[in-house]
Amino acid sequence: MTIRAGRAAGLFITFEGIDGSGKSTQARRLAEALAAEGRDVRLTREPGGSPGAEEIRSLVLEGDPDRWSAETEILLFTAARRDHLERTILPALAAGQVVICDRFADSTRVYQGVSRGDLRAKVDQLHELMIGREPDLTVLIDMDPDTGHARALSRRGTEERFEEFGPDLQRRMRAAFLGLSEEFPSRFRVIDGNRSIDLVAADVHRTVAEALA
Amino acid sequence: MTIRAGRAAGLFITFEGIDGSGKSTQARRLAEALAAEGRDVRLTREPGGSPGAEEIRSLVLEGDPDRWSAETEILLFTAARRDHLERTILPALAAGQVVICDRFADSTRVYQGVSRGDLRAKVDQLHELMIGREPDLTVLIDMDPDTGHARALSRRGTEERFEEFGPDLQRRMRAAFLGLSEEFPSRFRVIDGNRSIDLVAADVHRTVAEALA
Repeated sequence: MTIRAGRAAGLFITFEGIDGSGKSTQARRLAEALAAEGRDVRLTREPGGSPGAEEIRSLVLEGDPDRWSAETEILLFTAARRDHLERTILPALAAGQVVICDRFADSTRVYQGVSRGDLRAKVDQLHELMIGREPDLTVLIDMDPDTGHARALSRRGTEERFEEFGPDLQRRMRAAFLGLSEEFPSRFRVIDGNRSIDLVAADVHRTVAEALA
Repeated sequence: MTIRAGRAAGLFITFEGIDGSGKSTQARRLAEALAAEGRDVRLTREPGGSPGAEEIRSLVLEGDPDRWSAETEILLFTAARRDHLERTILPALAAGQVVICDRFADSTRVYQGVSRGDLRAKVDQLHELMIGREPDLTVLIDMDPDTGHARALSRRGTEERFEEFGPDLQRRMRAAFLGLSEEFPSRFRVIDGNRSIDLVAADVHRTVAEALA
């Protein structure tokens, strides 16, 4: 495997999946497991993950679903990502940490590229221009869209702009994530999330351990 | 003149210049003069000019000078500009209004492209990708850099991230604005701002009247 061949010394792992897939839980479980093995781990998330990016997160995720156009939203997500990358991710990688990030650019590719008009090309051009960094490893927690949708609905909070979606959209999102895993096979690992948390966590841990070996 | 040949029915006029050049005063004076002639005028400004863009403005302009990197700043300005364009400028132009905007993309080209690293190419690529609209007419209020600097310092408020600059930087900014006027001669009009407000206003009004004729 050549996933260590990034620009930095650490390892940059992202978790992706539809709403309600359990990826945040799994990101945390992996961070705990690696820390228990003595690895230096930095758990973070997007949008957010640095003080400035968290402020942008509030702007993007709260309020009316029509508050921002898809294009403005992509710019705000990219601004937050740039700040997160500069202030949190790259310094942690340079210090040799394993960075585990709950969502990254693949979420923008899927959510803005699929859900809000055919903007995938713009998302990619913007990423290339202003971010230019991909994860070393992306864990996709694959989940039945109906189950994911029901879970996401049960925990709605104030940041609900992106969970106004029906199960049909969840199905298209799932397909888009699986499409990305075929587009970027060298960094993607697809994990079946339709099992107990412990079983999924063990599978994630084994997969990442292989990558770290 | 072909400056009416934009995509919209109205006319899109921007004011540019270094801090302290008097461009905001002149933008307002022009709006008043055109309104007195019975024209339907929309006076606006950047960053800001729409509710969402004003929120982004607060994020960008307040706080520590190192709060954002130049790249993140460009993304935030572009997000604000996209919102301003969609929600304020294009609807006003479609309604046949004369839109007068205090700063637009040329300010980003100068301030981020000159002051914070050689980012002009990135600024242009981002503009092309996410904005794609230029003003029909740009009034550059050209001002002695030392006078402009002294004026800008005398009115510092909470939005001071961009007025931490010395007179040398003001000189480079002025040169960059004049450079843009040579790069885009068909839409730029350079007005000597080193005169009384009334004389400058009369000159601006005459210049715009020619363009509107």
